[in-house]
Amino acid sequence: MSDEELREVFKILFERAMPGISLDCLIFAFQDQALKVLCMRYTGQDLWTLPGGWVMRDESLHKAAQRILYERTGLESVYLKQFHTFGEVDRANLKEFLRNVNPNFPQDYLPTRIISIGYYALVDYRKVQFSKDFLTDLTTWQDVADLPELIFDHREIIATGIKTLRAQIDHLPVGYHLMPESFTMPDLQKLHESILGEKVDRANFQKRILSYNILDRLEERRTGGAYKAPFLYRFNLEKYSTFINEEF
Amino acid sequence: MSDEELREVFKILFERAMPGISLDCLIFAFQDQALKVLCMRYTGQDLWTLPGGWVMRDESLHKAAQRILYERTGLESVYLKQFHTFGEVDRANLKEFLRNVNPNFPQDYLPTRIISIGYYALVDYRKVQFSKDFLTDLTTWQDVADLPELIFDHREIIATGIKTLRAQIDHLPVGYHLMPESFTMPDLQKLHESILGEKVDRANFQKRILSYNILDRLEERRTGGAYKAPFLYRFNLEKYSTFINEEF
Repeated sequence: MSDEELREVFKILFERAMPGISLDCLIFAFQDQALKVLCMRYTGQDLWTLPGGWVMRDESLHKAAQRILYERTGLESVYLKQFHTFGEVDRANLKEFLRNVNPNFPQDYLPTRIISIGYYALVDYRKVQFSKDFLTDLTTWQDVADLPELIFDHREIIATGIKTLRAQIDHLPVGYHLMPESFTMPDLQKLHESILGEKVDRANFQKRILSYNILDRLEERRTGGAYKAPFLYRFNLEKYSTFINEEF
Repeated sequence: MSDEELREVFKILFERAMPGISLDCLIFAFQDQALKVLCMRYTGQDLWTLPGGWVMRDESLHKAAQRILYERTGLESVYLKQFHTFGEVDRANLKEFLRNVNPNFPQDYLPTRIISIGYYALVDYRKVQFSKDFLTDLTTWQDVADLPELIFDHREIIATGIKTLRAQIDHLPVGYHLMPESFTMPDLQKLHESILGEKVDRANFQKRILSYNILDRLEERRTGGAYKAPFLYRFNLEKYSTFINEEF
């Protein structure tokens, strides 16, 4: 795309989009026994960004979040919630950032201050189809415990999102959205530990989770390990819904 | 103020303020055994609004919330937290609203769509000094269980704020910010009931609250009633802080 074409893209974009309001999306998944968040790498740089986008003038915030999630993952109808709006004055100077990327980058339509509304989604990573945009060359899952360098305040956005998950985890079994259909108790414990950022006691964890009465234990066990095969569990959707309704 | 002067006020305001972004503030207090929220009445109308304002271009969201709270109540350093951002497309058509109030109202600088960031404050009503603005003639506490007619989606904003308090109340003893220095257990129970919107069991409530170990029982009792005088309690700030840190 030539600079002139790019300028036209931005001009048209900001005629359609709300000025100075963006949306950043934490797309969480549980992969390889760790909590991961979807990040995108700027082309030719060792700098990453959360997937995000602009809010169109005729689009509600929630609709914008659904659209951005769909564009980045191909997913619809997943768990998606607003958690915090980020509004420090100097949190995201897009003009300055893009000038550093390319001094010829057309700037006349770029906002100098952006307030960003944070949403988080809980997804099954097996169902995600990655996409790129014209500024990025790689989309991938990043371990929340080992994040790369991120643009703007995106590291803080991730930290705030994890805090929100932590506050939920005792009431809302977030595992339902993140785990595969069947899983072992140690798998679920790993998810909780990854969200909490610390080890939990195995016996207490199992006792508490089972006390919610939202899991079915399956007939078959996981096989292939050297030790005694652990039981497989599955969320019972009906009991899960009852639990959620009673808690809230 | 003449229409021309008013027009100039709006012109200057929107040179300084972010376009299309406002902030609404739920100022909660516990008064006459009920949870109240501060509302302002439009002059000559039976229509109320939450205290709110605009975000200046050089002001963070949190600073804007602190300023608006101070302007409306004279309070500083109180518990103040962001809870949700409201962004339906048609939630607040300020142009239309002001045109109905006064067809001559100058409109050229008014936004057609406003995204509003909701904050809530927990305050001691005895310390609040009311103020008015040029559109309102009365500021007062309204019982959340018996709200008057409110502008835009302000009723929904209040409902969402109360939901946030409800989700907190089991972990974060919000009473610390809302109760007077000393109070009885039935007073505190009333606060919880007012937030939850339902009665709670007296014995269970007392047992649970005392189990947090954040209250000191005072030597003196409340006097003047026909029945046995109830004990007075006071939050122990040190224990309270320890409790909060352990929980989060």
